[in-house]
Amino acid sequence: MSPECVIGVDLGGTKLLAGVVDSDLNVHHRVHRMVRGLGQRELLDMAVEAVEEARASTTSEVAAVGFGIPCLIDQRRGMATMAVNLPLRDVPFRDLMAERLGLPVEVDNDGNVAALAEWRAGAAQGATDVVLLTIGTGIGGGLIVNGAPCRGAIGAGAELGHITIDLDGPPCQGHCPNNGCLETLASGTALAREGRRIAGEQPDSAVGRAFADGREITGALITELAHDGDAAAIEALTLIGTNLGIGIASYLNVFNPDVVVIGGGVIAAGELLLAPARAEAVRRALPTMSAHAQIVPAQFGTEAGLVGAAALALENVANGVR
Amino acid sequence: MSPECVIGVDLGGTKLLAGVVDSDLNVHHRVHRMVRGLGQRELLDMAVEAVEEARASTTSEVAAVGFGIPCLIDQRRGMATMAVNLPLRDVPFRDLMAERLGLPVEVDNDGNVAALAEWRAGAAQGATDVVLLTIGTGIGGGLIVNGAPCRGAIGAGAELGHITIDLDGPPCQGHCPNNGCLETLASGTALAREGRRIAGEQPDSAVGRAFADGREITGALITELAHDGDAAAIEALTLIGTNLGIGIASYLNVFNPDVVVIGGGVIAAGELLLAPARAEAVRRALPTMSAHAQIVPAQFGTEAGLVGAAALALENVANGVR
Repeated sequence: MSPECVIGVDLGGTKLLAGVVDSDLNVHHRVHRMVRGLGQRELLDMAVEAVEEARASTTSEVAAVGFGIPCLIDQRRGMATMAVNLPLRDVPFRDLMAERLGLPVEVDNDGNVAALAEWRAGAAQGATDVVLLTIGTGIGGGLIVNGAPCRGAIGAGAELGHITIDLDGPPCQGHCPNNGCLETLASGTALAREGRRIAGEQPDSAVGRAFADGREITGALITELAHDGDAAAIEALTLIGTNLGIGIASYLNVFNPDVVVIGGGVIAAGELLLAPARAEAVRRALPTMSAHAQIVPAQFGTEAGLVGAAALALENVANGVR
Repeated sequence: MSPECVIGVDLGGTKLLAGVVDSDLNVHHRVHRMVRGLGQRELLDMAVEAVEEARASTTSEVAAVGFGIPCLIDQRRGMATMAVNLPLRDVPFRDLMAERLGLPVEVDNDGNVAALAEWRAGAAQGATDVVLLTIGTGIGGGLIVNGAPCRGAIGAGAELGHITIDLDGPPCQGHCPNNGCLETLASGTALAREGRRIAGEQPDSAVGRAFADGREITGALITELAHDGDAAAIEALTLIGTNLGIGIASYLNVFNPDVVVIGGGVIAAGELLLAPARAEAVRRALPTMSAHAQIVPAQFGTEAGLVGAAALALENVANGVR
């Protein structure tokens, strides 16, 4: 390991994953914690403790700490403004952590740090313009524009799941007041909903039998049954992939990106999701845009947040920020 | 006038407007030409001639020429790739003009140059993140991101009229293969279409009587009748403004801009368009985003393209590009 390193922390709604990361973005000394059910104070205490444990595990000097959080961030003050799955609201996260850890701290949205990971060391290396979508319970996003992360005026941007694709569509979730968002029609939650509907319509399919047996119809189960060849499960994934392609087409026309990276849990479906997404994106986007862009799966899986948070910390060490 | 100036050229589908512009973006010595019906060679000859006329009208040294064109641009080679309303297809516009004029030439999409004008000297001065929508026959767009113009990987981006807002909506026009684009539901063309529908439904309204009298129901006529207080004309503008607000909400969530600037011919309707657009944007966008952003009319009217093209030329003089 190089003499100087950083600590990256993926603080998710279910668990925390921290790691000591060198300047080549290799991860050493991982630390795990469970998060669910904690209050705000306990959550912050636990994050400090996890970073201290990671720091104690290395002989290298830790130069900075980066956090990726599924939360709206106000970068002007490093505030964690509003989160759906974490007890964080209007917390001055960056300064609070910097004071408790005695180290420079950076914080960003989980989608933004995942985009940073893919751009620096993953599926979008060498690109100047990148759109990243993470398809999980919801849809998160991250943007690289003109060769730099794009976070908007106060750092709250790139909420790429929250564009309307169906003006009369179903209501969105959490703190989003919209209806017909991409998230409502192409997330893991949408996949499970469509899977249940198709299971009811096709009781003899594998999905239908699982439903009749009382199994919970999740995105993960549908993906598993689709990989096993169940036509009904494939139909559900094709529908979600097609909806995803509608959103991708809009982003191709807006950003003219080199690459669209699809990550998150639902990308476990691989080409069963991506092939219909690509077909729909090409059908809808301006030909100049779709001819230029690649639509590819994320390279980092469960460590995208950790690596991206470390990349964030490394960038700001390099820039001499704070 | 300062000793050094540039020439800005707005090369539209109907007419060309050129002007000598100083470093404070004041316009001197305007030149007009009609464009409609010209072939590609005649169009290029006429553009050269108009620039030469403007150049001859000033004693200042002309440092560069900027063009704004309603066309997909490939900035890697300064190519005019594809236009709906002009006979330009795969023309190496920048280099061809530079050679014929003997001056440095820059070229960009008309939406991008309008955004540059509003950002440098209009409604978006001082902002770092700007979304501009021009509502005319179609919907054009321009973006300032992180304090710089955002054109995408090959310079063809910011096609902000071409995001899907209604996945089953009407087919789009020109070279766009999509259906349910923002452009199909919130442009001047959409306003005229909805005006005709409402005229048929409400024959006693002013719009209905104009329709019965055989007048052509255009966006301009509807705007005029709405300003006179006709409820049916106001209804048509409210519908188009509401649809516009759906698109604005998506752009608030994606870009977290300081300001959304609405220009183009349809903005003659003023608050009759903007008030319903703002209301719908606030109803749909994440509250953090709508709380930060202003939604305002463009400051430049018919000279946005000319001034923006000049700003483009001035930027590249300042940067020492080409």
